[in-house]
Amino acid sequence: MTTNATPPKRGFTRTEFEARLERAQAAMTANELDGLVVTSPHDVRYFSGFATQFWESPTRPWFLIVPREGHVIAVIPEIGEPGMAMTWVDDIRTWPAPIPEDDGISLMKSALEGLPRRFGRIGWEMGREQVIRMPIKDFDRLRGQVSGLEFVDGSPTIWGLRMVKSPAEVAHIRHICQIASGAFERLPNTLSMGETELDASRKIRLELMHGGADLVPFAATISGHGGYDQIIVGPTDRVLGDGDVLFIDLGAIYDGYSSDFDRNYAIGSISDDVARAHEAVWQATEAGIAAARPGATTSDLWRAMAKVLEDAGSQGLNVGRMGHGLGMQLTEPPSNTPDDKTELVPGMVMTIEPGMEFVPGKMLVHEENVVITEDGCDLLTTRAPREMWRIG
Amino acid sequence: MTTNATPPKRGFTRTEFEARLERAQAAMTANELDGLVVTSPHDVRYFSGFATQFWESPTRPWFLIVPREGHVIAVIPEIGEPGMAMTWVDDIRTWPAPIPEDDGISLMKSALEGLPRRFGRIGWEMGREQVIRMPIKDFDRLRGQVSGLEFVDGSPTIWGLRMVKSPAEVAHIRHICQIASGAFERLPNTLSMGETELDASRKIRLELMHGGADLVPFAATISGHGGYDQIIVGPTDRVLGDGDVLFIDLGAIYDGYSSDFDRNYAIGSISDDVARAHEAVWQATEAGIAAARPGATTSDLWRAMAKVLEDAGSQGLNVGRMGHGLGMQLTEPPSNTPDDKTELVPGMVMTIEPGMEFVPGKMLVHEENVVITEDGCDLLTTRAPREMWRIG
Repeated sequence: MTTNATPPKRGFTRTEFEARLERAQAAMTANELDGLVVTSPHDVRYFSGFATQFWESPTRPWFLIVPREGHVIAVIPEIGEPGMAMTWVDDIRTWPAPIPEDDGISLMKSALEGLPRRFGRIGWEMGREQVIRMPIKDFDRLRGQVSGLEFVDGSPTIWGLRMVKSPAEVAHIRHICQIASGAFERLPNTLSMGETELDASRKIRLELMHGGADLVPFAATISGHGGYDQIIVGPTDRVLGDGDVLFIDLGAIYDGYSSDFDRNYAIGSISDDVARAHEAVWQATEAGIAAARPGATTSDLWRAMAKVLEDAGSQGLNVGRMGHGLGMQLTEPPSNTPDDKTELVPGMVMTIEPGMEFVPGKMLVHEENVVITEDGCDLLTTRAPREMWRIG
Repeated sequence: MTTNATPPKRGFTRTEFEARLERAQAAMTANELDGLVVTSPHDVRYFSGFATQFWESPTRPWFLIVPREGHVIAVIPEIGEPGMAMTWVDDIRTWPAPIPEDDGISLMKSALEGLPRRFGRIGWEMGREQVIRMPIKDFDRLRGQVSGLEFVDGSPTIWGLRMVKSPAEVAHIRHICQIASGAFERLPNTLSMGETELDASRKIRLELMHGGADLVPFAATISGHGGYDQIIVGPTDRVLGDGDVLFIDLGAIYDGYSSDFDRNYAIGSISDDVARAHEAVWQATEAGIAAARPGATTSDLWRAMAKVLEDAGSQGLNVGRMGHGLGMQLTEPPSNTPDDKTELVPGMVMTIEPGMEFVPGKMLVHEENVVITEDGCDLLTTRAPREMWRIG
């Protein structure tokens, strides 16, 4: 076992949840909502602290109502009652799910009808980077049944809250980024040329588990001779050979918070082209980190990185952006794109993720994670070496 | 490393995907659909073979159109094009996502307008145990824009296909069930009284990885003195003490297919009450396995198990059913409930999952996985021992 820094305490204090609710209620007043309804794993956990792996089962919908006045209400399957009772939520209403003909719909109707009204609008996860985790047939039925309460998009309100992390959340993210940094650094000790992407993936996962990660939902593991052409499909049984670049991108989890950064490994000897491209993405990352400070925008970050890559002869990138928010999920708003223009504020955790195609069909992508501070940013990851680690 | 049986070849043949498409097209004709649109990880993978962990990022929607006539069409973010090109799908249309103002909507509109029409209806994942993985605001926009094409619930069509597994799919599920069986059996060699639920979870995950599992998205790990009161929230830092029951439920993955079964461990010495309750759930499992054959229904399975549990003094169960379908997902339709009444046919993979509260607040749950055959069922798991494994 590898020793990592003392892990942050699991879970969050009641004060933290109260602060989340207060911020949410202020945002609802500003956005003219009488409440929010959340149904998806991360939003439910954010407002309640309810932690389960049971989201893997698609059978039952779960609802949390966050009202503009008063306490959070859980409307959930009976199977979840003892677990929800461990959280700070004390208004728990259940039904014996699964009951396909009425899986929570009549309970939700009466709960929504009982909410204090001021604006006649309730926010659901209807927009950007969100999903309503229930049969949409049932959602359609419910939204026709609650008279005088319009179902509107609550995503801007939810993301406005979740985008800015508390110190306790940042400590969680820093911890998992450090666990992943250690796993990346140790990988060359156990992996050899001639093994496969699948072997590499298994080995980095074992390093992460030994290092203290709870789960590893994302460990893209991809290789190619002289670079790769994509970063999301893999591992396969492709054998790592001389002149390959091995790319691993890790979304590991500690107590509900994710890392999201990658490393590139040189298998045997890489070409000068690849070394030059790596220097360019490494320098573009430096420029991104230097640009990450309060008052700058995500588009400023994008421009700082793009300038370095263009000067180095970038032929483009199929990723669509150069970094994004990070927190409970591998990727969260905002996006580092030319048009996003979200202003950075202290507490935002961002990935700095430049990449480029340097010859047709060959790309390199680099990534670090930072938190925006009062006067700049702090690196949460251990900075990648300027020259790729080598695997012989 | 532990030696397991030779793993089934990863991926599926082109013939298998052609057969899936043919069955889908026949079902669409029967259900009067001009096509299906799928957006969620397992449905996209089922029809295309596209395998990625990138679903962890909620930023970009993905669409696969399965038309009643002709070939599958992928409408996906640019970042996925090289990966989708590795599959059997050759009509791939992309946009440079993320573009919040038009993330695939105009591309989908024109793709849907170009489909051959006969019924004027297209199925989406609108119903039972399914989710539309895109902003519902965008879905609402799109369904108002494609004239003459009604968006209806495609879930019965999709589940009708996915519920009945091919021999290659069954081989995948059998393999991961065997890996999990081995991990369960080895756990007492490394876990001791005085360690925590979190330790137990880490150790079983390591056993699974060493045994050849790709991923372990579900490993509920829960303990209680003389039984437990719920089966979905845990692990925590609770210490395993004398007289506890440790419950672990494993959804491990091999090449996109899941196990779903649990084991109970006696920590030190358990009470006679607990031993009797374990005997009852073990016998109820026997009854469920005996009842699992073509022509029987899920409600017959439920009744066979319920009879044994009632005779043993069951005080009920908060789970809502006693087993369900299993495949790419931890839980799939149908459900073993009094009212489900789905007829079992060869190729269905089912969990047999009886459980009961035997004193107030203390329950035991048991589980095995079977595939329905021509004349009964085959056990995919290694049957749990009649007396619990002991951890000292």
